[in-house]
Formats: sequence, C-alpha cells, structure tokens
Amino acid sequence: MAPQLDGYFFQVDSMSDHFIERLRQAVAIPSVSSEAARRPDVVRMGHFLADELTKLGASVELRPLGKQAGMTNADGSALDLPPVVLARYGNDKAKRTILVYGHYDVQPAERSDGWDTEPFDLTVLDDGRMFGRGSTDDKGPVLGWLNAIEAHQKAGIDFPVNLLMCFEGMEEYGSDGLDDLINEEGKKYFADADAVCISDNYWLGTERPCLTYGLRGCNYYSVEISGPGADLHSGVFGGTAQEPMTDLVRVLASLVDTDGVIQIQGIKEQVAPVTEEEAGLYEGIAFEMETLHESLGSKTTIFEDKKSTLMARWRNPSLSVHGIEGAFSAPGAKTVIPAKVTGKFSIRTVPNMEVDKTNAAVYKHVEEAFAKLKSKNTMKVWAQHTGNWWVASPKHWNFNAAAKATERVWGMKPDFTREGGSIPVTLTFEQATGKNVLLLPMGSSTDGAHSINEKLDKKNYIEGIKLLGAYLHYVAEEPKNED
Amino acid sequence: MAPQLDGYFFQVDSMSDHFIERLRQAVAIPSVSSEAARRPDVVRMGHFLADELTKLGASVELRPLGKQAGMTNADGSALDLPPVVLARYGNDKAKRTILVYGHYDVQPAERSDGWDTEPFDLTVLDDGRMFGRGSTDDKGPVLGWLNAIEAHQKAGIDFPVNLLMCFEGMEEYGSDGLDDLINEEGKKYFADADAVCISDNYWLGTERPCLTYGLRGCNYYSVEISGPGADLHSGVFGGTAQEPMTDLVRVLASLVDTDGVIQIQGIKEQVAPVTEEEAGLYEGIAFEMETLHESLGSKTTIFEDKKSTLMARWRNPSLSVHGIEGAFSAPGAKTVIPAKVTGKFSIRTVPNMEVDKTNAAVYKHVEEAFAKLKSKNTMKVWAQHTGNWWVASPKHWNFNAAAKATERVWGMKPDFTREGGSIPVTLTFEQATGKNVLLLPMGSSTDGAHSINEKLDKKNYIEGIKLLGAYLHYVAEEPKNED
Repeated sequence: MAPQLDGYFFQVDSMSDHFIERLRQAVAIPSVSSEAARRPDVVRMGHFLADELTKLGASVELRPLGKQAGMTNADGSALDLPPVVLARYGNDKAKRTILVYGHYDVQPAERSDGWDTEPFDLTVLDDGRMFGRGSTDDKGPVLGWLNAIEAHQKAGIDFPVNLLMCFEGMEEYGSDGLDDLINEEGKKYFADADAVCISDNYWLGTERPCLTYGLRGCNYYSVEISGPGADLHSGVFGGTAQEPMTDLVRVLASLVDTDGVIQIQGIKEQVAPVTEEEAGLYEGIAFEMETLHESLGSKTTIFEDKKSTLMARWRNPSLSVHGIEGAFSAPGAKTVIPAKVTGKFSIRTVPNMEVDKTNAAVYKHVEEAFAKLKSKNTMKVWAQHTGNWWVASPKHWNFNAAAKATERVWGMKPDFTREGGSIPVTLTFEQATGKNVLLLPMGSSTDGAHSINEKLDKKNYIEGIKLLGAYLHYVAEEPKNED
Repeated sequence: MAPQLDGYFFQVDSMSDHFIERLRQAVAIPSVSSEAARRPDVVRMGHFLADELTKLGASVELRPLGKQAGMTNADGSALDLPPVVLARYGNDKAKRTILVYGHYDVQPAERSDGWDTEPFDLTVLDDGRMFGRGSTDDKGPVLGWLNAIEAHQKAGIDFPVNLLMCFEGMEEYGSDGLDDLINEEGKKYFADADAVCISDNYWLGTERPCLTYGLRGCNYYSVEISGPGADLHSGVFGGTAQEPMTDLVRVLASLVDTDGVIQIQGIKEQVAPVTEEEAGLYEGIAFEMETLHESLGSKTTIFEDKKSTLMARWRNPSLSVHGIEGAFSAPGAKTVIPAKVTGKFSIRTVPNMEVDKTNAAVYKHVEEAFAKLKSKNTMKVWAQHTGNWWVASPKHWNFNAAAKATERVWGMKPDFTREGGSIPVTLTFEQATGKNVLLLPMGSSTDGAHSINEKLDKKNYIEGIKLLGAYLHYVAEEPKNED
C-alpha cells in the first residue's frame, strides 16, 4: 500500500525558505577539516548540528575521537579531532530503524581560487542554483534528514521509522578515527539498525535520479628508487652515475598503456565475468558521452561509446600514475639528479579482486620490471593504503523503498548505478552492522563537489528532502521477509 | 727566466690573518641572489668589494643591470638587479692585461638546513677548514685577486700585469643581464684584455691542483602532455580518460637507459672521435673511483674504471631526467589524474655537437615516441634553454703561465682537466673578447660549493692567493709569439 505523502510534501514546500536558511547557516561555518586553523569552525559546525537535532527532540551525543596524528595547532600543540555527532530520533520497537551517515566538514575554498561568489555565503540565483562550499557535499544532504524530521513534526505526521544518525567532521581529510568508532558501535549504538542509508554521492547526470549499489576499491602504491646519498648536479655526475629517475620512469611506463590496459599479470584475471543480465543493463542508463566530454573538458576518452565507458568506470579496474615525490616539480629548469624518487600510482579495484592477490601481482610486476633494468640502484614497492570494492544487493527492500520513493517524488524510475570512486565508510558500515547499505544521492553530476563554485540546485535540495522522507515511509511499508 | 716570487710569497704568509679577516667580512654579508628579501645584502656585498678595490687604488665602476624579470620585492615592486663591479688596476701599455671574472653572490643557506656552524659566520677550525657560505664559491677566489694586489703593494713589488676585473652578483640565479654587458664591453671596457682567467671551479680531487680547459654544454628540454581541461579524480575518470601521465612516463622512458646510453638517434653521431693522444691522457689524471663513490654517497656508478668515468663526465654527452611539473609531488597519497604534466630533462653536450642539430634530434625522437602511443592527448616539446660546450687550447701561454705558477706554488704539475658542468660565462668571455680563457680553481673537490657546510681550506686560500699572483708574474714572462 502506497503511503500517504501529500501532507508531508506540502509541508516541505511551505518550509522551503526555512530549509534554505538552515543551509545558509551551515554553509556560513567554514568547517574545512584539512586546515588546522579552521578546526574550531569544524567543531562549531558539529555543535550547530547537535543543537539543531536537540531542538528537534533527538537524543544527541558528541563523541570525541582523540588527537589527530600528523597535524598540529600553530603553536605546535596536538590538534583534537572534531567530534562525531551521534543521534537517535525515535525508539519505537514496532518501527524499523534506519542508520544514516553524512559529514559536516567541507573541502577548502577561497574566493581567490576562482569562485564567482563568496564560498561561505550561500548565494541563491534566480535559476535555482545555490552556490556555496558544502552546499551539496555534504551539508545539504545532512540537513535533509533534519528537515525531514521537522516537516513531519510541523505537519503532525508520525515519523515512520526510528532514525540513527552518524555525522562526522573529517570526511574530506581521511575520516580519521571513524572506522574504529563504527566498528565499536556496530553492535552497540548502531545495534538496532535494520539498514543503512548514505546520502553523499551524485546522480550520474542532471536529469535522472539514481540509487548506487557499487563502488570500486582503491589500492595506492609507492615505488621508491634510490641510489646516490644526496641529490647530485647533472653536470658533474651526468653520465657517470645510474640515475634513479631513469629507472623509475621505465618502471612506471611498464604499468599501463595509453588505452588504460593494465600491463600487470594477475589483475584482469581476477575480474568477475560479465553476465548476460549485466551486459543488458548499461544501454538503459541515462548517460551521454557528450556529458562526459563536458566534465572531462576534452574528448580524450578511451572509448567512444556509453557501454564501454560505464563498464570501465564501474566494473573494470583502472590504473593511474599520480606523480613522483622527490624529483624536481617546480616551474623552470633545475639540473638536479634526484637521489631518491618515489612514484605513486593506484589501482581501482572491482569484484572479485582480492587485496592480497592484487598487491602480490603488483609487487611481482614492479620487481620484475626493475630487475630487467639491471640497475645498481635500490627499489622498494609497497601499498600506502588499500580499500576494497563494495557491491550491495539492489534487490533488497532498502533499495526497493528508495526506488519507489524516487518514482513518487521525481516521477521516474531511478537508474541503478555503481561508481568508479570509493567511499570507504560504506564498506565499514556494511561490515560493522551486517546490514544492507544504500547510497541515495541528492545532488547532480554538475554540482562540482570538490571544485570552485560548488552548488546544489534548489530543486534537488527541496525534492531531495521529500525523497529522504518518502524513502523512510516506503521503508516502513516494505515486507519484512528479507533482511 | 723564472720570476722572483719569494718576497711576494713571504708577504702573503705574513698577511694571512688579515686575508682571512677579509674573507670573514665578506662571508658575513648574506648575499643570496635567489631571495628577493636578501637583495639589499647582495648590493651591500657589491659595494663592499668596490670599496676594498678603491682603497687598493683600482678605478671602479658599479654598473647597474636594470630590473629583474620574474622576481619582485615583498610589496610587488620591481627588483633591481645587483650591480656588476667593473674595475681596472694598472694601465701600463708595456704590460699584458688579464681580465678576471668572479661572483660575489652566494647560494641560499640557513643553519636549519643542517649546517654545523652559522653559515654566514666564517668558522675556522684547527685543521684549517674554514666553513661559511661563499667561502669557496666564490668569495675566497674573488678576494684572492684583491689580496694579491695588496700583498704586492705591502711588499713593494711591481704588479706584473694590468688587471681588469668583472665581478657579478647574480651568478647563482642565472647571471641575469651579464651576457649583454660582456658582449657590449668586449671591445670597450675589456678591449685591452690579452687573456681571461676565471677562478670559480674546483680541483678534481683534494691533492692535485688542476687547470681546466673544457666544459660540457647543457640543453634543457620540456615535454608537455595535456588532455583533460582540469585535474580529474581517478575514481570517477580512471579507465575512461587517456591520462597524460601515462603517456609522459612512456616518452621519458624512451630517452636513456640505466647505463646512461642515450636512445635518441643523432646524438652520439655528433660526438668527436677519441684521438690516440686524448686516449692516453686519462690514466695520468689524479682521480680515484673511491673518491667518486664517496662524493656520490654510493657505489651506483655506471663504470668501474677511471678512464671510462672521466670520459663520461668530460667528453661524452649525458641525459638526465630531472622531474615532472604538474603531477602530484608531495608526500602521502592523492588520487589525482593530472590534466597537464611537463617532463624536464637535459642533455650535457660535448664537441662537436651543435645546438640546432641536437634540438632537432630530440624533437624528432620525442615526437616519434609520442606518436607511437596513438594518444588523443596533446604533446609539445621545446628547449627551455641551450648552452654550448667550451674547449680552450691548453697549450696557450695563458695555460703555460698557470701551469708554471702551479708547479712553483704547489710543487707539482697540475692536471689538465675538463668538467662535466657548464659555466656559460666562460664561452661568453671567449666569444666577446676573442681571447683564450683559463679556469684556475682555488678550492678542492670536497668544498661542497652548493651544499651545507661549504668550506675553503685555509691552505687552498693562502696558497691560492700566491698562485693567482704567481700566475700573473708568469703571464708577464711568457713569450709574445702566441696570442
């Protein structure tokens, strides 16, 4: 039975100015997690959220995460990590409980980076675009949950589920300390959760909403090659010393070709074969190569067609060479022979790749490529970090509820998508709670989450609030036969 | 007839404390040419030299070189280049005239870089090592000329030549404006010069003095590869976009191998063949592989023997890859696909390589290597700067005089050496004056000119002052049949 949602939707529309004002207040707090000097603002943003939640009747905890490794205050003292906001709204055993995650910190932003508006001053244009740092990533979606609660209260509609909330303040700087908290609370604070919903990604394009059920993993590698005791002058030593850079570019050149084909034995062998069912999915997805060319800023794509491109992004591994540490990297000319250089590359991983097997294949390849050079230099290769891929079942009631809510709010079926990037917390929540995780995006592909002129469209914000609320109503109605 | 030098030598020894004091005063002026904030100190150092020279009776000019391109004061205003100190001591038509060059600016230095002593406070140890920035590069040698004049005056010995002096304040930052001045004054201020002597390099080792008659040139290249309109996230775009870094490391890998063999067609074809006479020269040179391993800080040399190593440094071209601009170069992990990356490499050039032919060979090779990739990205290759090699005749009276002076002061014949690095001003002086240029080093290979703990040995300083003076006496005695 379809839930009655008209009253809720009407209430959201009538409160839209209030919700935009709430977003304006949140954007005005420059909660940049990567800058020590902004840490008080990050903490202030956590308290702002906690206060708003408390006013709405939620029970709220500000969980400290201890000191941050590797970043200090200007006076050299240790920096406190911003608190995690844990909150519960409703505790009715007869209702399902949904755990939602979001983050209240943002990427750095300065007007001088090229913003057309003040980044921490939400600027709403007549066409509905709302510019401001954090508008779409991730303050809009986080406030979406608060707004949904408030609209229910104002409309006098019973909230359909119990809501557990976990909002962190370090997402843009590695989510320090969060995994430990999630793992610890999986069977404690989060014990009641029947499913998880994360609103922290984006539609594939601008017209069709989507539900996301898969993410690639990311293994990040370093190859260090060293020889001389210190950097050398190429005039004095050029031609007489074996140069680490000469070796490193040769090793890096052996990893992948121009068309993205990984040259390491033992990677593609691990990739899950394409089933017929999967092969048929891609053509229906709302995705245009023109849009990709636009966001790429060029036509230098590997493939010319949609299906190959989506498969490359979602279900095939890729290898990118990111750069070299220790070599000359400034503008101009410097005649240095760097003594120790470290190449950085990463592999995006997909089902059924295994971290250990992938690492072993990478190490073997790099060691063989270096051995071929017969160099006297010294080579080390290691994984800086690894992170597994994630794929959920899109046939779970959690996805069914979200799909129905999407069709109700947006008037069209959502695309079921995967993403090329990783959101490591997704996998952590799945493993800590053992429950299905759904990614339910609010913003669209043009929002520019980490760029200048980040924005959230007013329509996506307001309809998004309706969507989050509607999703919870459909959750309440889904049959209980599946967990 | 050997000149009478005992009186001069005795005078130098008796004034050694005074000469060290003069060096202390010079080192105390932190004339770092690469730092805008130190520019007043560079200018002060120029004035210090000019004042000392004036007191010695030289006629001195401080030549302005105009504004510096690409560097400004803290308030954004244009920065004046430090003046060139031009001076003449003696104007006797019956005497030969020697033009000497040196520089009064220094490399940057901070105690915190790892210096064991205050870098701008000359520290003389009991073993004779005198630590201080600029002690050996090039304040010691520059003051050597002034000290030689003063010792002659104090001893009442007639100065054997007319001395023209050209001391610049921008050598460590590209000698901005100097070439124009030299070319302009070649037939004017420098018109009388019969030969040129530059004391701004080092002995090959620590025991045997040398005279240097050749330098390699340096052509510095950039290869820029670009594709996307902006840096991309490797999660979203990895596998779908052709990545400029993938192409660049492949192009850079094609240039040279681990053993330094240049893979570019048309380079080694230009190298002058080894004559029998030349082949016999290397074994006699005072040079030990152990010393090379020591200065290299490792045993990662291409060759195991002295002869191959010296030939590689002096008379064969080499290619070094210096780094990449635009890629990720910091510590840590960043999952960026850089949109535009510029590889930097240089080729050390030797007789009879020609700049234009070498450039053409490099461009052709890089274009072909890139074309092989069949990439949609865009590639540009260009020479950032080029500089020719220089080889003088070591049989010229200028070298004969220096060889005799060396044997007289140090009690041994000097090695005749070439160097792997370039000192572009050498070629400029040769071309502007049409005269023989001699490189007559004062310091030794362990002085650490551009490193922390730069030093000049007291013995090299004091005997070096004797050497410069003795050289001028022998110059005066050399037969006039050769020019």
